[in-house]
Amino acid sequence: MDIRKVKVVRYSERASYDRDELMKILSRNFICHVGFIDEGEPYVIPMLYVNDDQYIYMHGSPDSRLIKIIGGGSPIVIAVTEIHGIVLSSDLCNNSINYASVIVYGRGSFVNEPAEKLRVFQLIINRLVPGRIGDTDLPTIDELNSVAVVKVKIEDFAIKKREGGPKISSDKHWEGVIPIVINYGKLISMNNKPIPRYLMDLVMNHQQIT
Amino acid sequence: MDIRKVKVVRYSERASYDRDELMKILSRNFICHVGFIDEGEPYVIPMLYVNDDQYIYMHGSPDSRLIKIIGGGSPIVIAVTEIHGIVLSSDLCNNSINYASVIVYGRGSFVNEPAEKLRVFQLIINRLVPGRIGDTDLPTIDELNSVAVVKVKIEDFAIKKREGGPKISSDKHWEGVIPIVINYGKLISMNNKPIPRYLMDLVMNHQQIT
Repeated sequence: MDIRKVKVVRYSERASYDRDELMKILSRNFICHVGFIDEGEPYVIPMLYVNDDQYIYMHGSPDSRLIKIIGGGSPIVIAVTEIHGIVLSSDLCNNSINYASVIVYGRGSFVNEPAEKLRVFQLIINRLVPGRIGDTDLPTIDELNSVAVVKVKIEDFAIKKREGGPKISSDKHWEGVIPIVINYGKLISMNNKPIPRYLMDLVMNHQQIT
Repeated sequence: MDIRKVKVVRYSERASYDRDELMKILSRNFICHVGFIDEGEPYVIPMLYVNDDQYIYMHGSPDSRLIKIIGGGSPIVIAVTEIHGIVLSSDLCNNSINYASVIVYGRGSFVNEPAEKLRVFQLIINRLVPGRIGDTDLPTIDELNSVAVVKVKIEDFAIKKREGGPKISSDKHWEGVIPIVINYGKLISMNNKPIPRYLMDLVMNHQQIT
């Protein structure tokens, strides 16, 4: 299998190939954009994902055209992007965005073993809501068989990021950064069970306006 | 030019083709993921964008390989995704994500007129920081000429979204939604100018934890 060369020519000072950093960015997010080709045309779809050290996992209906393509082994690309802030310069054309993004190149294949599928769902819930795994119903084999799980080996990747203030600064207008943070709002209960402690902790840990 | 058929077969109850809704979603965001094909392989990159009723605009260095491809007229796809919440069901396999996403299909071309480029930068700053346009230095013709601006005609699109609680509910464990909101943090000043009122208002309007 040929490994694709990942070229980050422009703004090369923004590029990084550090695998630890790749893992850090992948492991603190859960939404990606998957790019693939179908009948010669490009497609991009947002997907829930989880990763371990070697693979990125996604799931969907086995009847889904998209899942069939993503799991079918043709080259795909997975982008995970964090937006950290809006950078304001005095000059209209020098405003910028602070961000960190990873682009992963690989090929997908289907996970068929129910035990391995279960592990993926456990990874997902541990990513989304730590503590929930002890407070949920586990799926039956039939339920696991009714879901398609795709794993994508991380063949190659590129990290790009920008941080700090405007590159060219002046005192003509206010310059600086508007930080962007993702927060969790007040929990919306849909049944009469009391809100578990792990959920209150999760929301509290995601309510940082500094 | 052939218009691509956009099929949303799976979860078709989540799909919508309402142009007003397309415009609403496009106009309240500013980061997209652009998919394209280069030498037979799929690529996805995050980009800053702005839109009007007909076009999506992006910009970059005229020497950038990506900008050349995106502006070169081959079919591209633009995804804009909002994540609204994590949906917790009692069953591990019925957890879900509330979201709204648009996928736009089109072809890019370059904007060459400096006046039209200036309009795009004005659209961008009005999207990012309303009020800033009266408190910024406008670019010279040379500056405008040194930036490549691409416009993509909205040929076709699809909207997908999910809202509400888990599809199958039970009283076995807590069920509900963890809302996800994007907030702006405390402004980081990089010069000695006082923080303008429009910036204080912007941050205050993006600090909603309910």
